[in-house]
Amino acid sequence: MYAFSSLLKNNLPGEFIAATEIEIHEAIEKATVAFETYRQTSFAERADFLEAISEEIMQLGDALIERTHLETGLPEARITGERGRTVGQLRLFASLLREGSFVEAIIDTALPERKPLPRSDLRRMQHPIGPVAVFAASNFPLAFSTAGGDTASALAAGCPVIVKAHSSHLGANELVATAIINAAKKCGMPDGVFSSLIGEGVLLGQQLVKHPQIKAVGFTGSFRGGMALLKAAVNEREEPIPVYAEMSSINPVLVLPNKIAQDVDAVASQLSASITLGVGQFCTNPGLLFVLKDGNTETFIQRLAQALQQVQPATMLNQSICAAYYKERQQLLSAQGVEAVLTGDEGREEYKGRPSLAKTTAKIFGENSSLQNEVFGPSSLIVVCEDENDLKSALRSLHGQLTGTIIGTPDDLKRFQSCVDLLIARVGRMIYNGVPTGVEVSHSMMHGGPFPATTFAHFTSVGTEAIKRFLRPVCYQDCPQEFLPDQLKDENPLGLMRKLNGEFTRDAVHQLEPVPR
Amino acid sequence: MYAFSSLLKNNLPGEFIAATEIEIHEAIEKATVAFETYRQTSFAERADFLEAISEEIMQLGDALIERTHLETGLPEARITGERGRTVGQLRLFASLLREGSFVEAIIDTALPERKPLPRSDLRRMQHPIGPVAVFAASNFPLAFSTAGGDTASALAAGCPVIVKAHSSHLGANELVATAIINAAKKCGMPDGVFSSLIGEGVLLGQQLVKHPQIKAVGFTGSFRGGMALLKAAVNEREEPIPVYAEMSSINPVLVLPNKIAQDVDAVASQLSASITLGVGQFCTNPGLLFVLKDGNTETFIQRLAQALQQVQPATMLNQSICAAYYKERQQLLSAQGVEAVLTGDEGREEYKGRPSLAKTTAKIFGENSSLQNEVFGPSSLIVVCEDENDLKSALRSLHGQLTGTIIGTPDDLKRFQSCVDLLIARVGRMIYNGVPTGVEVSHSMMHGGPFPATTFAHFTSVGTEAIKRFLRPVCYQDCPQEFLPDQLKDENPLGLMRKLNGEFTRDAVHQLEPVPR
Repeated sequence: MYAFSSLLKNNLPGEFIAATEIEIHEAIEKATVAFETYRQTSFAERADFLEAISEEIMQLGDALIERTHLETGLPEARITGERGRTVGQLRLFASLLREGSFVEAIIDTALPERKPLPRSDLRRMQHPIGPVAVFAASNFPLAFSTAGGDTASALAAGCPVIVKAHSSHLGANELVATAIINAAKKCGMPDGVFSSLIGEGVLLGQQLVKHPQIKAVGFTGSFRGGMALLKAAVNEREEPIPVYAEMSSINPVLVLPNKIAQDVDAVASQLSASITLGVGQFCTNPGLLFVLKDGNTETFIQRLAQALQQVQPATMLNQSICAAYYKERQQLLSAQGVEAVLTGDEGREEYKGRPSLAKTTAKIFGENSSLQNEVFGPSSLIVVCEDENDLKSALRSLHGQLTGTIIGTPDDLKRFQSCVDLLIARVGRMIYNGVPTGVEVSHSMMHGGPFPATTFAHFTSVGTEAIKRFLRPVCYQDCPQEFLPDQLKDENPLGLMRKLNGEFTRDAVHQLEPVPR
Repeated sequence: MYAFSSLLKNNLPGEFIAATEIEIHEAIEKATVAFETYRQTSFAERADFLEAISEEIMQLGDALIERTHLETGLPEARITGERGRTVGQLRLFASLLREGSFVEAIIDTALPERKPLPRSDLRRMQHPIGPVAVFAASNFPLAFSTAGGDTASALAAGCPVIVKAHSSHLGANELVATAIINAAKKCGMPDGVFSSLIGEGVLLGQQLVKHPQIKAVGFTGSFRGGMALLKAAVNEREEPIPVYAEMSSINPVLVLPNKIAQDVDAVASQLSASITLGVGQFCTNPGLLFVLKDGNTETFIQRLAQALQQVQPATMLNQSICAAYYKERQQLLSAQGVEAVLTGDEGREEYKGRPSLAKTTAKIFGENSSLQNEVFGPSSLIVVCEDENDLKSALRSLHGQLTGTIIGTPDDLKRFQSCVDLLIARVGRMIYNGVPTGVEVSHSMMHGGPFPATTFAHFTSVGTEAIKRFLRPVCYQDCPQEFLPDQLKDENPLGLMRKLNGEFTRDAVHQLEPVPR
């Protein structure tokens, strides 16, 4: 296999060899053996490992930036920023490990005198679940790929990782995978704690998800791909496993009347920038805009179209993503009741994505759920609502989303609060007077949401809470102190925040003297 | 439909009418409408509601105890204890709501001066997911049924509940359902926040799990039943939903050599009591015992058989559970290499379960995974291991379990630590020198575990953490204070423990004055 550059329109140097079935099996077997020791590593050792990965990635220097740029067509400045995000999230997980309270230690001490029955000493904490298969994403060749958030959070949890490389950036994958393996060696981590496999997408994906030793899947990609993995995980394994797939979101934005009346140009330019950022190739791209019909609606639509028109078409991630963009856009534009506002395909031959804008009514939108299919690229659909009730019924028909956004004056926000409530019930993140593109890597981030945005709305794939996907609780009943993990010992040697008899504390457990009878 | 009493061998008074398809649909539609207001109730209001339910249940008085006793054959003292547990867990969830930190508020304040990009204000907390279908269990007619742990945790989370009543205790269901509905009325909760449906098990179950407005399922029951729901939830719905099924566990116990040498009678009588508690009809029943072959092994086996032999057969929950017990036991005993130690079926005609004990070798156990099928009733299988390696390979072949138990002297525990590690990797709760039966309702309880014990090892169905099954995170980005939920407001009006810029605190957010440039 070769890496094709849509920028240069040719194959880049380097041949990549697809893993054989035996090699896939070996990688997973190694990960399974590695798990028995890796799960027992201390949090400090794992933190050192993650930091070593970030150092090794930085040491790849410009070679990584250049190769990734050529493979994806993304500008070098963007790749440099994404590298910063990638090493930053590795370091954030290292700090989470050094602090350690993410294990959610909960302790209920024994009540030997309780009537009618005594209570045992019960102590609970999170443990890693086992080897994780990570599916790299096309649109974030670093931050959601080989050493991306899924890999960082699984390794932090104590789970070995097997990455399915994305065929769009095989060179970047190889560089980063080598960096991770070097870091593992330097830190004395067990052989097999990380590996990266190359192969025909669907086939390799199915081989990974069906393997009995894989215990969870992290995936960022298409709806079809995510659903195929979810179904295989439940139907084609003896033991069903969780598939955390982030798939499809069109990220609705409510653009409210007073704000349009006050700031039509600013709003149009803010939205145009968000729709076209990264040639629209973001999971949080605002592909759906709700407006209320009044004297300013047409002006707003025209200004937004003008702003989009001024954005130069840019090279998309690969040929098939570009072809899919024009196809999905065409499906949207040819739907009954949908009208093109801005279209055109200049640059298509060079794999460039031309921004596009369409409009329809709330009635049509509510009647045709296929208008909610994601168009992956710089395209958005405006839904014009007759009044607030019309808007509400459109919102009630909305599928689950990663994000919802409201753009309005303080008066707008008050007046449309019940609409915002309807939106919140359908999204993972609600943005006030901003844009959905731009996902902070932090403790509070929720990058997830109700189906079809993800397969499991309980979890985020970005930020420190992402570690929870790869942990499961274990409760120790009447375990002698010397056999307890440090996290649960009386003296709290790691100084964790724990829940002790219902109270949050970093205090040690003070064993009471037995009460004299 | 009538309630049959295996104790009286006849139908009890009262006819129960199966819900029609229209009634099922109406109940779910009502729950969907109720969700829009119920999700907005304050935590104090929900706590009042849960406490009112517990009061209404207590006010049912002896009528509930008597009816449940006749329907299930369980002794009145056990039912009285189970009622205590049921109202206790409702009150525990009420206290969790009054404290409020279970929403896991996480706040990262804005960094407007950060380079290269400013950080938005991000605040995240848990929200309810929507109407939940709860499948009542046969073996806990109160604590895992109509007002059991699933119902209590879903209502606490802010989710309306539709219970599928268990056909084994229709009268108890009707009494408790009426108590819940009375409490809802008294507390001004929306119509449809709770309903209970009766029907043919598989048909009604499928109707519930396939309904588009049901957002999660809580289930305690058979492996077949749980798997059918899981598959329907993924394959027969447009939107897959989580099915939290607690299904099948045989709760292995390692009985170690020094302990047997020291205390053979005490260990035998402790295990016999646990195996026969509630006629073995517990999900945590110890159905599998590992011992190491030495001079005391045969004595231990004989003493355990003698202790079991002395336990009088008692009435099982219903006719089909009793029939299944003898059938599953027979399948185990007829497997190649399995030898009956204690068998017999005295009392079978009266739906009584006769204790049973079998034995096999580690080699046979490792080769035949069907020996790990649950026998629901007072039966256990002893696996005799030649040595520690033999034990380890048997442990490596173990399926996921709710619990694992180790019975040993301090020396035993040290010597077999690597065996305990293997067991911990396969269980939800690890018990030291106790028995697995008896599940404390507390903050630290983990009643769950790797497949096939449950469909999702991340969650517990007992204890306060059970609420997490019915919550999903929502992040608010740059939301003005007045529109934030109280849980996320700067001043922290509810006094919650929150994670603020990475630190745990109950402090308010002190907004910094803008730094002068």
